[in-house]
Formats: sequence, C-alpha cells, structure tokens
Amino acid sequence: MTKVLITGGAGFLGANLARRLVKEGCQVTVLDNLYTGRLSNLEGVPVTFIQQDVREPIPEADYDVIYNLACPASPPHYQRESLFTLLTCIDGMRNVLELARRCKAIVIHASTSEIYGDPEVHPQPERYWGHVNTLGIRSCYDEGKRVAETLSLEYARAYGVDVRLVRIFNTYGPYMDPKDGRVVSNFILQALKNEAFTLFGTGEQTRSFQFVDDLIDAFVLYAQKTAAECRAFFSEKGVTLPVLNVGNPGEFTMRELAETILRLLPDCTSAMTYAPLPGDDPKRRRPDNTWAKDFLGWAPRVPLEEGLKATIAYFRTTL
Amino acid sequence: MTKVLITGGAGFLGANLARRLVKEGCQVTVLDNLYTGRLSNLEGVPVTFIQQDVREPIPEADYDVIYNLACPASPPHYQRESLFTLLTCIDGMRNVLELARRCKAIVIHASTSEIYGDPEVHPQPERYWGHVNTLGIRSCYDEGKRVAETLSLEYARAYGVDVRLVRIFNTYGPYMDPKDGRVVSNFILQALKNEAFTLFGTGEQTRSFQFVDDLIDAFVLYAQKTAAECRAFFSEKGVTLPVLNVGNPGEFTMRELAETILRLLPDCTSAMTYAPLPGDDPKRRRPDNTWAKDFLGWAPRVPLEEGLKATIAYFRTTL
Repeated sequence: MTKVLITGGAGFLGANLARRLVKEGCQVTVLDNLYTGRLSNLEGVPVTFIQQDVREPIPEADYDVIYNLACPASPPHYQRESLFTLLTCIDGMRNVLELARRCKAIVIHASTSEIYGDPEVHPQPERYWGHVNTLGIRSCYDEGKRVAETLSLEYARAYGVDVRLVRIFNTYGPYMDPKDGRVVSNFILQALKNEAFTLFGTGEQTRSFQFVDDLIDAFVLYAQKTAAECRAFFSEKGVTLPVLNVGNPGEFTMRELAETILRLLPDCTSAMTYAPLPGDDPKRRRPDNTWAKDFLGWAPRVPLEEGLKATIAYFRTTL
Repeated sequence: MTKVLITGGAGFLGANLARRLVKEGCQVTVLDNLYTGRLSNLEGVPVTFIQQDVREPIPEADYDVIYNLACPASPPHYQRESLFTLLTCIDGMRNVLELARRCKAIVIHASTSEIYGDPEVHPQPERYWGHVNTLGIRSCYDEGKRVAETLSLEYARAYGVDVRLVRIFNTYGPYMDPKDGRVVSNFILQALKNEAFTLFGTGEQTRSFQFVDDLIDAFVLYAQKTAAECRAFFSEKGVTLPVLNVGNPGEFTMRELAETILRLLPDCTSAMTYAPLPGDDPKRRRPDNTWAKDFLGWAPRVPLEEGLKATIAYFRTTL
C-alpha cells in the first residue's frame, strides 16, 4: 500500500488529491496548519490528519511519496502576511526535503507559473527563466517559489533526493475557498449572489484556466514514473531536475470568463465594473505543455464550460 | 562611537571595510566562519572577532550598523558546496535581519549584480528585474541573493527594519583571496608566475571591474544617510526598498584585461589559452550608476590601471 503525505492537504488542491489517492487505495496522511486549508474539505475522506505548520520539522514516518502543496496561493491570501508566505515557501520546502532525504520518498513539489513572473515569451516552456521582481508585492510568493526550486535542485545534488517540480498554472474547481479571492471563485460567487463582477484593468488580460481534475491526473502520472525514467527524459532536455508545466493552454480574457459564467447562469443579473490593475500583475500567461504530453502522455481534457459547471455546483453547496 | 558589525568581515570586502571603519573611529566587530575569509586579512586591525557561521543566530549586541557581507562570492567557491551557499544567503540574511530588528541597526546588505543574471538590458538599472535560471549551476548564489532581497523587503514591511541593498558589480583589489578563482586574481597570479592566462569562450565577453576602495566609499556614504533621506529618494523612484547599483561602468573584454595586466608587468612571458565557457555564464554586465550618483554623490574614481597596480602589489606580498 503506497504511503503518501500531502502537505497543505486540507487546501483546494490537497483535498482533490487526497480524494483521488484514497480512491486508488493509497494510505494518505495530510499535514495542514489550516491557515487557508479547511477541515471541511476532507469531510468523509479517510486520511490521517496532522494539524501542523509545514515551517516546523515534519514528524518522521515512512512515506513513499510526499506532495508539497502547503502555501497560501491566491494573491489576497499570500499578501496578507507576506513574510509568513515567503518563510512557508522556504522552510516548508526544506522540511519536506529533509524528510524525503531520510525516508527516501519521491517529492512532487507544487511550483507555479508565477516563477515566470510577467513573461516575455509566450507560451512559456520550462526552459524559460522568467521575469520576476525581487522587490514587488508579489515577490514573497514568486521569489519564495523560485528559491524552493533551487533548494530542490541543491537537495537533489547534495543528497540524491528524488524531487520533481510541477509548475502549476491557474487552476479552479470544487473545494476552492470561496474567499480565495481569485477570479474564478470571485466571479462565480458574484454571479450566484447577483452582485457586479469586478474586472481589473481593461479586463483584456488573459489567463489559462485548468480544471483541477486535469492537474490531479498529471500529479498521479508523474509520481508513477521511476527515477530512471525521469533522468532519461529530463537530462535529454538539458534540465538539471524534473520540471513540468501543467496547465490548460486555452487562453481567455477576464471578460470572456465572466461572459461564460453568465451564459451558464442565465438568470443572473450581475453587471461588470472595473478597478485598477494591482501592481506587477502579469498581463498574460500560458503553458507550453509539450513536455508533460511527451513524458506523461498527459493533456488537459476538461473544457472550460464543463469545469465551470462542476465548480458552480460546488459553490452552490457552500452558500 | 558608532558600533558596527561586519558579517564575513575577514573576507575580501570585509577586510577592506573593517580597515576603513576603524580608521574613521568606529568600534568594529567581525563575524566570520573563515570558510573563505582569512584571519590574516585582519592582521593589525583592532576589531572584535567572532568565529561563527552566519547561519547560526548572531550573539546579541547593540550595533548601529550591520554590513551583511557573509557569503562565498566567486563561482568556484560558491559552487564547491552549493547547498551551503544557498543556505548562507537565506539563513545569514534572516539572522542579520532578526538581530537588526531587535537592536534597531541599519543593515547594509551586499546584494550583487548576479541578481540580474544574464541580462537582456544594458546597462542594468536597479528597476531591471533580471534574467536568472532557478535550476542552473549558478542558481545557488543567484537565487539565494535574490531571495535575500525579498527577505529584506519583507522584514522592512513587517518590522520596519531599515535595510539598504547594494548590488555590487565585479570588484577587485587588495585582500582578495589568491585562490578566489575570479578573473582578476587568476590573471594577476598567472602573470606573476609567468603561467599562461586562461580565457573562457572567445575572451570577448565583457565585465566591469570596480576597485574595492570605490565600493567602500559607497558603503560608508550609504550608511550615513538617514532613513528619511532613503525614503524620500527611493519612494520617488518607485522602489519599495533602498537599492543601489555600485560598480564601475567601464567595460573591458577579458582579453583587454589580460593585455592591461601584461602592460603593467612588461617582463611577464605568459601566453593566452582558451577553455570552454562554463554554464549560464553571463556574456555581459554593466551597472547603471545613476541612482548612486544622485543619492550618494558617488562615482567610481580609480581607473583600471591604477587599481590593478595596487592589486598586483598586494599579490606580490602573498607569494
């Protein structure tokens, strides 16, 4: 029986992953400080729950796979206590790598498209180095996540830790925190309450939106690869560590997203309002998924409308 | 009497700074683990010496200014134990910021032009975000130094720590480690021993070379500014933290540097040999010093030939 630890396992991604892994017969332990995670996300899911901050050393146990998902991920959440966010990225990663080093677990680390910052290349391949401000309002997250990648590389080099990075692009779906503050949950909630939608800037900046089930597919396929398969694939690509973009390349403007949600909720009377663009907001971002396709045989399958329907159904249950 | 702590104070920059500050009547404490620093660098300099790694919490004392210079800085040194280098950047910065938070010291932090990586803008102004690989052989240093800037910002925001960043460009001079492995010391030593010079790549990549006295001038001027003066200047520039490039903008190719040294040592019989360029080696880097000039009234004064003469004289004493 595969023993899995999920840090941040009571959060949006963690709750979806825990459900999937339990269904597949894994023995799942969740570590979460409930800073943004919610116990209700794991209701009825048979996991061992440890309420603890990932910045503290993780209790020893013999895990086969550790998914490191612990970090506030939406701008309003991660900017609320930005030093805490930065230290969660750094110390959480270190504690996971230290544990993995001792128990020889595979680490699947939730990196992010934010490490590309405001990119100057579209779409972004994994070899793109990124364009990030060290001193901006997003830096606590962006630079924290960047240095977590570098820490992973250094633990792999120093101790042979088998760590695999996933650069996750914008993801949505059931178990998102309604107060998460990101555009999909904001728009759906505003629509369900017939409140006006807030578009930042002109509303013409684009995002790719990945339904969470697609991401979880990629996580599971990635963890099933052997270390030798990873070495063979990624060394041929000229990168020093396994690293995959995982996202949906379909680009939609904020305005198109709003319009799609309105189409799914024909009774909704919400209007659109505009607010200034926050600092360092990336104007555009889109994954190049070639490597994930070639290595995992993976591609996103859930179209936006279908994913939004499932997400709207979930949000209805939370109101 | 101004009380100053210099972390890494037995290293190249630290030894030059300690000498200057002692001359100006400061009470100087040096903290150094002697990983690359050398006690001989401080011979005859009346400082309090603490042999300790900056990754460990720093003993409490009431400092007015802390210069955070502790980190291996030449590629052969920082790549020797790359995880150690990364953790020195991270934990050293944190320990300095924690101490400064308690004793209300001004922190002058030695950031680096390496945070610009392999830049796509020439010369680099402080507002340039940089172009850095998170997963390369230089990442332990580059990303470590980048996240140290972000940690500085977050401590300034969370606790009001008065931290001022100096992005130091290539610097040379007396008290460099002869085994440092950087181009100026390599060439001078090779010339003094009549050994062949090693040029990497074509030898046409350029660097700017700053004589250490110029950098120390900038350090001292920067520390004399009040917090209010910093706020006024940098907020008008639209940056969230005081940050200054300090370097010599004169660009020389590796080949020109070699030729200048050969001119100063007319009896030298060294030839030039070529080796492949190491990974991620930046092809060109040059400071935009406008802010340092406007804020500090500072400009580099020592021409290359004069600085090289002083450096050659120093290296002669070490042979």
